[in-house]
Amino acid sequence: MSATAKTSPCQPRKLRDVTHWDRETDVVIVGLGGAGACAAIEAADAGAEVIVFELASAGGGSTALSSAEIYMGGNGGTRVQQACGFNDSTQDMVTYMMMAAGPQADEAKIRNYCEHSSEHFQWLVDIGVPFKDSFHEERAIMCLTDDCLLYTGNEKAYPFAQQAKPCPRGHNLQVKGDNGGPLLIKILVDNVARRDAITIEYETRALTLVVDDNDAVVGLVVRQDQRELNVRCRQGVILCAGGFVMNQEMVRKYAPMLAVGNAPIGNPGDTGTGILMGMAVGGAAINMHEGFISLPYYPPAEMTRGIVVNDKGQRFINEDVYHGRLGAFVLRQPAERIYFIVTVEQYGDYEKVSYLGAPVAGTGESVAELEDELGLRAGTLQHTLAVYNEDCARGVDSLYHKAAEWLTPLEPPLVALDITPGRGAVVPYFTLGGLDTLPTGEVLNTQGEVVPGLYAAGRTACGVVRRAEGYSSGMSVGDATFSGRMAGRQAAEAPRH
Amino acid sequence: MSATAKTSPCQPRKLRDVTHWDRETDVVIVGLGGAGACAAIEAADAGAEVIVFELASAGGGSTALSSAEIYMGGNGGTRVQQACGFNDSTQDMVTYMMMAAGPQADEAKIRNYCEHSSEHFQWLVDIGVPFKDSFHEERAIMCLTDDCLLYTGNEKAYPFAQQAKPCPRGHNLQVKGDNGGPLLIKILVDNVARRDAITIEYETRALTLVVDDNDAVVGLVVRQDQRELNVRCRQGVILCAGGFVMNQEMVRKYAPMLAVGNAPIGNPGDTGTGILMGMAVGGAAINMHEGFISLPYYPPAEMTRGIVVNDKGQRFINEDVYHGRLGAFVLRQPAERIYFIVTVEQYGDYEKVSYLGAPVAGTGESVAELEDELGLRAGTLQHTLAVYNEDCARGVDSLYHKAAEWLTPLEPPLVALDITPGRGAVVPYFTLGGLDTLPTGEVLNTQGEVVPGLYAAGRTACGVVRRAEGYSSGMSVGDATFSGRMAGRQAAEAPRH
Repeated sequence: MSATAKTSPCQPRKLRDVTHWDRETDVVIVGLGGAGACAAIEAADAGAEVIVFELASAGGGSTALSSAEIYMGGNGGTRVQQACGFNDSTQDMVTYMMMAAGPQADEAKIRNYCEHSSEHFQWLVDIGVPFKDSFHEERAIMCLTDDCLLYTGNEKAYPFAQQAKPCPRGHNLQVKGDNGGPLLIKILVDNVARRDAITIEYETRALTLVVDDNDAVVGLVVRQDQRELNVRCRQGVILCAGGFVMNQEMVRKYAPMLAVGNAPIGNPGDTGTGILMGMAVGGAAINMHEGFISLPYYPPAEMTRGIVVNDKGQRFINEDVYHGRLGAFVLRQPAERIYFIVTVEQYGDYEKVSYLGAPVAGTGESVAELEDELGLRAGTLQHTLAVYNEDCARGVDSLYHKAAEWLTPLEPPLVALDITPGRGAVVPYFTLGGLDTLPTGEVLNTQGEVVPGLYAAGRTACGVVRRAEGYSSGMSVGDATFSGRMAGRQAAEAPRH
Repeated sequence: MSATAKTSPCQPRKLRDVTHWDRETDVVIVGLGGAGACAAIEAADAGAEVIVFELASAGGGSTALSSAEIYMGGNGGTRVQQACGFNDSTQDMVTYMMMAAGPQADEAKIRNYCEHSSEHFQWLVDIGVPFKDSFHEERAIMCLTDDCLLYTGNEKAYPFAQQAKPCPRGHNLQVKGDNGGPLLIKILVDNVARRDAITIEYETRALTLVVDDNDAVVGLVVRQDQRELNVRCRQGVILCAGGFVMNQEMVRKYAPMLAVGNAPIGNPGDTGTGILMGMAVGGAAINMHEGFISLPYYPPAEMTRGIVVNDKGQRFINEDVYHGRLGAFVLRQPAERIYFIVTVEQYGDYEKVSYLGAPVAGTGESVAELEDELGLRAGTLQHTLAVYNEDCARGVDSLYHKAAEWLTPLEPPLVALDITPGRGAVVPYFTLGGLDTLPTGEVLNTQGEVVPGLYAAGRTACGVVRRAEGYSSGMSVGDATFSGRMAGRQAAEAPRH
């Protein structure tokens, strides 16, 4: 095989064009992030010989860059949930995650995730992941103490709380600061490294899959030290190569809505090659248009007492939701400007402590003055605030069902932040589309049939999370680690050929 | 080739598995709807020998079921536009169509469509399509007279009119009643039939493509009279097999948003097989999540004087938009109910003349009474109507920019229709995703490279129309006929192999 031959993830290599095998193993894994590491551990523990190919010089992927909260619960509660007094039911977790995923929910996958969630917690503990039996009560995006349990989504917010009993399911690792990702990856990679059945090859790029005459995946072509190597796999290839948030052309084509974001969340390897390789052998890519997009307006939690309005002066959401849900709803507003309105006291030293970065659009000693400064039609914001303040006095948000604990009348002087995407605020985003898989990690083609020999996990697959408006922190690393394990085990149980 | 061998659109047949050819021609076309017929005519007129395979017993596809308005203009205006006093600029047409398609716009395709639009008009005239030099002024979804020109979209509505000079571009055929589709198809199929170079094979199902060792498309497998036939094509295969609105599983997977629709627009052959066959040989399917979805609340045009509010009593759109834009905006509202509010006089005999089918949700001798009947928070609808009526008196919709001609104060008694999707209203829908193609009709793979030998047109391709919120009637049949021609010509110019 000539090293100058063009090799594209779009063009699988035919088995008959493979003149020799450079390497051979049972299970090949592409990518050593959270998903790939867990896949490798499970595959090895199930008796398979494994090679992991990682593009970078070290493992980690996007998991290493994350806070690594892990979304777990159900089954009466994890050890931490129980210790903190939360009795979490599997059905509540399923209901919540189904609502979160919306019309594109994959019920079989969500059910499998929830039913095995406390077992997943135990598996992580068994390989050495530390969780403290403590509850972090404050409304936060991430936990900067070494406490474990926190609310990381919309569990307590309307309409979720009305249909599923709220329970905190974000599990933060026992480490101070925003250091969960590096610690989790260290533990996972150490576990991979100590298993003799696993070989890790760093600085190696996966180029394309090898398929036989029946379109079954039987190998992988990689480039290492400027050489192309043909790697035979007896049981299967597991694609754990991340998403496509760093591939601007793919984002433009498949998820144009994300173009308003300005802070891609991911690692440089998130170029979609795993998804493309899977598609090239017939795998279906689904939910490709969806992504996480957010306006991280808290902490400080006090911001939640403010209201968000469009340029008609109308509210459109309960402001006690998760920041990603607010971001998604902002995008759906038929408006050219969106404002976050708080009192001067609530604003406080917001610009120093926040990372939202939204500019002040106006201030007012009266609501009328603020309306005028923002160029709103006279009377509109006044009406909205009159209704809101009356509702606050009664303790019931009659329009949007913001929880009573956040309802305090907003009295001037007021400050309005311009949170319109594209006007200065930080708008993080990442993709939520990928290869269609069974709960086992087996990749499906467009007819819903299994592509023989191919598995995907983590962001390369389309997992349990499907929409920004239902996202909870911890669902990505939860899905990556869990789906990686499922795929690793399934591949290791496949017959060798 | 055994007739019992499994043949799936997901699994292209390998050339080496083809033991013999049953048929052979230059260009093979799948589907004899608007796109396929135009492709066949152009390919034949460019010197190619053509076989068209049609699943049904007659040509027509979804074009035959449509009103067959054709969206054309630019270049100073078609003959009809000019005769009716409209001087349409290509740039205005491009600007309008770019806004309509939004962030996923394909500028090259739109520009090509607009630049050749008056030429397309002439081509249709030349093959016998009759257009009367007359203007149908009334706001309508379709033209029931034999008049030609009408506004069929958002051209006169905010924000389109502010950026592109409004011009009517819907061209209705010279035929009374909603009979444009059958007439257009009759003319197209007659033109196909009279060309000796074209053979039509009805009642023949396209099963899968044939690819050579380089993944170039070199043939098609069809089933006819319970026999599988291998058809060799020397120049290419053009997929004109419609969209996937009739494939519930595909809609659920790729366009879950459309699940709220209850009236699929299309023909029984719109099962996505053309798209699937293209994907199976590496073609990229894009914009798969998008669809047209609508609440056809007019005619009568007088309904436009009403307002649409959510269950917070807020307006959220200029009600003088095209019905599809209103449908798309309704879906984006964070609300459980959407109401259309009109005066008793405007309501008139609406239930007899409309096909919206939305039930009356409440009536009120006063706004407060209507609020109460609808269960709205007291004061909210009153505020909205006070603002709206004040704006009407001034002739300026300060919030949503509804055009002055539709602004009349709404005075009780009032009627509210429940137009929430799923509550009784007719919600038509169809898909807007398909194979990624160049303006020439050549299909692209996920890397943006041409798939050799493969073309797509009409709804099997992702055309100039990309979103409900920017849809205008006539864009689908316009795109089908025009893209069919482009693909037919391009395929006929390919080298024979």
